[in-house]
Amino acid sequence: MTLLLHMNGVDEAGWADRLGPLLGDRPVYRRDDHFDPASIDYILAWKPGPDAFAGLSNLKAILSYGAGVDSLLDHRGLPDGVPIIRFSDPDLTGRMRDYVVAEVLAHHRLETRFRAQQRRREWTQIAPPRAEDINVGVMGLGVLGKAALAALAGFGYDLVGWSRSSNIVPGVRAFWGAEGLVPFLEKTDILVCLLPLTRETRGILNAKTFSALRRGWLPGGPVVINAARGALQVEADLAVALRDGTLGAASVDVFETEPLALDSPLWGLHNCRITPHVAAVSDPAAGAIYFAGVIRDFEAGWSMPHLVDRARGY
Amino acid sequence: MTLLLHMNGVDEAGWADRLGPLLGDRPVYRRDDHFDPASIDYILAWKPGPDAFAGLSNLKAILSYGAGVDSLLDHRGLPDGVPIIRFSDPDLTGRMRDYVVAEVLAHHRLETRFRAQQRRREWTQIAPPRAEDINVGVMGLGVLGKAALAALAGFGYDLVGWSRSSNIVPGVRAFWGAEGLVPFLEKTDILVCLLPLTRETRGILNAKTFSALRRGWLPGGPVVINAARGALQVEADLAVALRDGTLGAASVDVFETEPLALDSPLWGLHNCRITPHVAAVSDPAAGAIYFAGVIRDFEAGWSMPHLVDRARGY
Repeated sequence: MTLLLHMNGVDEAGWADRLGPLLGDRPVYRRDDHFDPASIDYILAWKPGPDAFAGLSNLKAILSYGAGVDSLLDHRGLPDGVPIIRFSDPDLTGRMRDYVVAEVLAHHRLETRFRAQQRRREWTQIAPPRAEDINVGVMGLGVLGKAALAALAGFGYDLVGWSRSSNIVPGVRAFWGAEGLVPFLEKTDILVCLLPLTRETRGILNAKTFSALRRGWLPGGPVVINAARGALQVEADLAVALRDGTLGAASVDVFETEPLALDSPLWGLHNCRITPHVAAVSDPAAGAIYFAGVIRDFEAGWSMPHLVDRARGY
Repeated sequence: MTLLLHMNGVDEAGWADRLGPLLGDRPVYRRDDHFDPASIDYILAWKPGPDAFAGLSNLKAILSYGAGVDSLLDHRGLPDGVPIIRFSDPDLTGRMRDYVVAEVLAHHRLETRFRAQQRRREWTQIAPPRAEDINVGVMGLGVLGKAALAALAGFGYDLVGWSRSSNIVPGVRAFWGAEGLVPFLEKTDILVCLLPLTRETRGILNAKTFSALRRGWLPGGPVVINAARGALQVEADLAVALRDGTLGAASVDVFETEPLALDSPLWGLHNCRITPHVAAVSDPAAGAIYFAGVIRDFEAGWSMPHLVDRARGY
């Protein structure tokens, strides 16, 4: 078997050095190496250029170094019919879980309020609500959503979940589909978005969604946390909602355009917690082990747990 | 049996209303009621005034609405030999656990750095370290310390603990006593202080302690979190350490003098996260149930789990 690396913005040479030994020194090519495109069995892609798939007429599988495959599925050169396998590993899942729990706890503990008080040198004691009085709603009940919910359960939050189709998670009141969306939002104080970006989910975090959230025990109002994809949110709506009190606060790790433009109103909002797309950064060491395992399993005829469904979009 | 309430700065009348029914309508007096001091069996105290214990010649027990009993033990009118029972309940423990996990996760996820970047509208991606590469050290291995450690274990941190005397906590490398302090600090990236305030612990968070902390994978340097008592820390040392880089950041919920003075340098330090003594606010509903249970158990001759050791100081 032969593997082609096509990875932009990461240390591709380092990946080649790592993967070679893990694959028993079978050929691992980089773009500028001399090789026959028709001999390539697998391509490992990250932000692939327009010609990434040109001439790869015998591909067995496309490996995506990224949990989200929306931009890969939009690639004009993507060959039909070739299985796509996306990255998923415990390191990535753990990092996303840590981000989600950190942000949920921060908002539960009235973080943006206490920071505003500190700026004013103001000593006003207000007790954060009990965890049991706060409903946390997670959109997207895949590997990441389930890991986040399992960790949140330990703090006593009331948990609800929403996904595209029916999905049972122990200890979580689950809703699904278009008809389940508003009932889910009406039960949610802190909304955590971990959805894949598809035709159905684009722009789902909009003014209508924000207005439907529960106004419960959080003194400032409901909260939105988006760690999935920037195009899931309508940033103009988000800025308005954070200003007019429809939302008490937000944590945003992903943006419609990245890097976030200097003139975005979100930077200056004290109730908007911005991080530069670092909620779950893929670890190259873990990634090399994962993809070497995927190739070995694929060659041995095992079924692939993280196979992308092109029609569904993730 | 008769109970006297002596509680300053809380809704004492509300407490009387709650406790009466829970005690089968036995007498619950407030300070201004007409009663014979010699008839009082129990006093429930919160920030007691100088004459709180005057004439209470037949006290069976003193109940402290507060997990920390340092100021009560310093009370000049405190009668000798009377057992002191302090507040401890799952609600209080859960709130402290939430605060600790929120602050540890915030620092692990480079919170103060990303907030500084946001103020500058700066998009610089830096991946937080792996939880497995961070050592969290908890000082104080009582109910609160153990609950915090149990919750932190779920995130994969390497856990160390320090206490006055030998104390075994599963999954935690434990150190104890004066001779164990520096070895403990040298293994700690994020220090969580949950110690009682005693002669031995006063000022323990000082320049020497800060310098001994590990300089590991946290890019900014080690972190101190104090949610116990303000007199455990030397605030002048803390401000210097946060400025000169000995510490990367801190979270401080308690202060030498509260409210924190307007001219304290801590307010203005961007790597110092200040909250106004709200890490674990006692819940009156939970408190009334707890103390009614303590009195019933005491009357029935049960042993008391949260009895204060006066010689030890907590």
